[in-house]
Amino acid sequence: MKYADKYKPMYFPAPAGYNKWMEKDHIEQPPVWCSVDLRDGNQALIIPMSLEEKIEFFKLLVDVGFKEIEVGFPAASETEYEFCRTLIERNLIPDDVTIQVLTQAREHIIKKTFEAIEGAKNVIVHLYNSTSVAQREQVFKKDKEHIIQIAVEGAELLQKLMEENGGKYRFEYSPESFTGTEMDFALEICNAVLDVWKPKKELPAIINLPATVSHSLPHVYASQIEFMSENLKYRDNVVLSVHPHNDRGTGVADTELAVLAGADRVEGTLFGNGERTGNVDVITLALNMYAHGVEPNLDFTDLPHIVKVYEKVTRMHVYERQPYAGKLVFAAFSGSHQDAIAKGMLWRETHDCDKWTVPYLPIDPKDLGREYEADVIRINSQSGKGGIGFLLEKTYGIRIPTKMREEVGYSVKDVSDHTHKELQPKEVLKVFNEKYVNICNPIELLEVHFKQEHGGISTEIILNKYDVHKVYHGKGNGRLDAVSNALKRHSNLDYTISTYEEHALKMGSNSQACAYVAIYGNDGNTYWGVGIDDDIINASVKALISAVNRYEKCEDGKEN
Amino acid sequence: MKYADKYKPMYFPAPAGYNKWMEKDHIEQPPVWCSVDLRDGNQALIIPMSLEEKIEFFKLLVDVGFKEIEVGFPAASETEYEFCRTLIERNLIPDDVTIQVLTQAREHIIKKTFEAIEGAKNVIVHLYNSTSVAQREQVFKKDKEHIIQIAVEGAELLQKLMEENGGKYRFEYSPESFTGTEMDFALEICNAVLDVWKPKKELPAIINLPATVSHSLPHVYASQIEFMSENLKYRDNVVLSVHPHNDRGTGVADTELAVLAGADRVEGTLFGNGERTGNVDVITLALNMYAHGVEPNLDFTDLPHIVKVYEKVTRMHVYERQPYAGKLVFAAFSGSHQDAIAKGMLWRETHDCDKWTVPYLPIDPKDLGREYEADVIRINSQSGKGGIGFLLEKTYGIRIPTKMREEVGYSVKDVSDHTHKELQPKEVLKVFNEKYVNICNPIELLEVHFKQEHGGISTEIILNKYDVHKVYHGKGNGRLDAVSNALKRHSNLDYTISTYEEHALKMGSNSQACAYVAIYGNDGNTYWGVGIDDDIINASVKALISAVNRYEKCEDGKEN
Repeated sequence: MKYADKYKPMYFPAPAGYNKWMEKDHIEQPPVWCSVDLRDGNQALIIPMSLEEKIEFFKLLVDVGFKEIEVGFPAASETEYEFCRTLIERNLIPDDVTIQVLTQAREHIIKKTFEAIEGAKNVIVHLYNSTSVAQREQVFKKDKEHIIQIAVEGAELLQKLMEENGGKYRFEYSPESFTGTEMDFALEICNAVLDVWKPKKELPAIINLPATVSHSLPHVYASQIEFMSENLKYRDNVVLSVHPHNDRGTGVADTELAVLAGADRVEGTLFGNGERTGNVDVITLALNMYAHGVEPNLDFTDLPHIVKVYEKVTRMHVYERQPYAGKLVFAAFSGSHQDAIAKGMLWRETHDCDKWTVPYLPIDPKDLGREYEADVIRINSQSGKGGIGFLLEKTYGIRIPTKMREEVGYSVKDVSDHTHKELQPKEVLKVFNEKYVNICNPIELLEVHFKQEHGGISTEIILNKYDVHKVYHGKGNGRLDAVSNALKRHSNLDYTISTYEEHALKMGSNSQACAYVAIYGNDGNTYWGVGIDDDIINASVKALISAVNRYEKCEDGKEN
Repeated sequence: MKYADKYKPMYFPAPAGYNKWMEKDHIEQPPVWCSVDLRDGNQALIIPMSLEEKIEFFKLLVDVGFKEIEVGFPAASETEYEFCRTLIERNLIPDDVTIQVLTQAREHIIKKTFEAIEGAKNVIVHLYNSTSVAQREQVFKKDKEHIIQIAVEGAELLQKLMEENGGKYRFEYSPESFTGTEMDFALEICNAVLDVWKPKKELPAIINLPATVSHSLPHVYASQIEFMSENLKYRDNVVLSVHPHNDRGTGVADTELAVLAGADRVEGTLFGNGERTGNVDVITLALNMYAHGVEPNLDFTDLPHIVKVYEKVTRMHVYERQPYAGKLVFAAFSGSHQDAIAKGMLWRETHDCDKWTVPYLPIDPKDLGREYEADVIRINSQSGKGGIGFLLEKTYGIRIPTKMREEVGYSVKDVSDHTHKELQPKEVLKVFNEKYVNICNPIELLEVHFKQEHGGISTEIILNKYDVHKVYHGKGNGRLDAVSNALKRHSNLDYTISTYEEHALKMGSNSQACAYVAIYGNDGNTYWGVGIDDDIINASVKALISAVNRYEKCEDGKEN
């Protein structure tokens, strides 16, 4: 790429020494969250939301637990004005929720804004102007002094009109494009606005520092925030807010480090919707904290529902790899990952685990309303015995013996490899059933009778092979042994039973039994068979016959 | 979310003091890039790539400029083995490209791996075992000593079999799940492996530190990398590599800070494809550097083509807000953004700009093969005069006078608001044409004749109004003035011409002319009209008549 010299870093680092944020390794308490889905998020949609869609989204945000919600720029368009009025007039704003409205510093716009919020209980009026070098020079064509003047006059106007209006609103000021602004100038303009508002403990002001466009590495932004936090006037009565975007793919990191650096409040959106690459994703931020053991004060216990509503009203699609929310983010296709997850889940069941520690799953999918079966272990040609075993056990209660797992693994992934597709659980079951369960070809067991004799069991079995019915007798220490001895009379196969395991498929005595038998043939190979039946004896006999049938079919030793 | 106490931070920070990385504010030279698209990326696909798809992807990676490409785990499956053989036998690997193959530390697997790479010129053999607390305890059920033994024996086996084999390969070792491992143990195991390999200047070893699962904030990972970088043995002959995943949405930040902290090499994928939330996105990393003026040594000048091939072979979709590559990442729908972009672009045209500084566009979309017209200024109900003006100018050469822009802006965005959809450029043009251009209702100009007289121009115009043809005469200082005076005779409208502007629609004398006329009516309103014609006089007369017609239609003053 030959044009690199056309670019230069567009940001202004804080003076040296603002890096105390580094000393903390994680966030210990959540910031105040402010959703800007209905503003930044909405204006970034190809088709902005309709009034009814906005109302549905607003309700979702309230349900998630946002206490501050930016609802729009009411003076900028009829639709936004009407939305604001509808929220107020239909009484849709809970008492503990504050709405936030954006305005520019012009008298008629502020007046229109105040009309829009008339009757609302809790309101933040959000004033902004752009402060970056690029915007001052190219867009406003004004020097620093004039840019401060715009902010100060806006702040004064807000104060004056609020007093005339008799309303009691909280104020927020954003030096828009903060990340392209010199730090001393950003500080100067924010302090000038604060000098107008003189925030008090009972009515703090919000200073919001947007990464309108993200220009720097995250630690540079964090030190900028620390610089501002330490040098703002009236700091005890200022809520320091950040509003990061994701141009460099570092919106989450920018925000996390900014919170360590002193930000008290975060403006962001669900799934990181927003202009261009988006705003910072509040869900990722909140669940990152949650995974560190910190209650985020937002509720994502039914994330699939939130995805559904979001996709409907915004017409956007949640990316498959979006942290926590994407379709694929808990999926393990690879054999070694599946194996580790299966072992980790088993570990949890068999140990007294205080904390969640399952490998490859940074968070328990169930906490977000997701399912292990559908979302975690997924089967394709990359999969392995551990995952396939886990899936058959969790979905169908089939607990394959450890020694049998590798063979079943290869059988299943071969099918995926050759059909070139993912296998659903029922397709995995089909492969398993067809290959191992109740195999009655060439030998079909028609009847089996047992007699308890002194020192053992004798049996009479009637077999059907190629439409010929024959009776065989056998004796043994137990029933399976007796049947095995009877079977050996019928054919010239020689083998020994090397493994036998059996378990109920579900809880309760009326459940079916599932038996696994491995026979070790005189060709040196092991053949597995599985029997499923209401009766535990029949299940084990069927397992044995399945194994023998597989041995018969593979006499040439190739199928195995 | 009530289960937060089920979680705890799962990582082990480096000892205090490893934070020299903080002193640099940006990356000054790119790391060595290694693509793991064909391994990690492939195993995370619902449907893994076929042989032919892998070959196509490999070629794309070579074209992008990757010099190290992990091609798979050849001993793990027939497909991966066959792919590796095909690359070698079809001679698809350029001389300056090194392929990398993954293997576990077991003799038959390493032997199979060596068979797979037979005949390749440059190979990295990549050995790994898992070292985290969770995996040691739950999956391998082995203590630290045994885990080191696995790594050391693997390293020895690699060395021994390579010597026997007569090949000359580079070696890489990964303590998989590094981010869940105690730092002293990670260091111990890597140093133990290095003690076996004793890397030399001419044959350095690669130590790769994966964020297999990302557990910590990015600065914690960076300090871990710095700790490893400063304490690894044979450091001068070790290439320190990182392999971040994106579980916390911070893969890009983790990598950037790790590079500052001493990582020489980065393993990642295009668009961040990979397990779960994905691997780190190499495109974002590279273009973040590029936007800081650093040549990344990878070529993304035709990013739309890369998106196309990627989507075809992986069956994944590049997310609309994926940095640099997503459909929407340069899109500005909002009026204030459009206005600033339009002004910034104009600034560039009219100033001698050494560096790219356009507001809201951190990088020039054209550098990535994207278009201003289609990708940047997009029109919906949130849009404004600046964007709409910019679009009409860039797409159709229509340079709307500054004073007319606001009115045109409202006209267009109202249509988007009411039809509830995005407007394509041709739809914006249609709104503009229907409202302003060559309006001939109710008055249609049939003929116009001029005569130059001493001290001025006289004109004769023939108008058609409601199928009645009439002739009017007028005099004026110039042609437009004369026509205006003639027009005033026909009707009782009183107005003054307040603005007149005209320009060619394209370069060259055979281009059409576009004229803009504003008249200030005695109702106190301004009416704009636009005329387009091959002839500059006809264009300006049509503009005037358009304005007059709009005035006539709006005599009640409401349409405006």
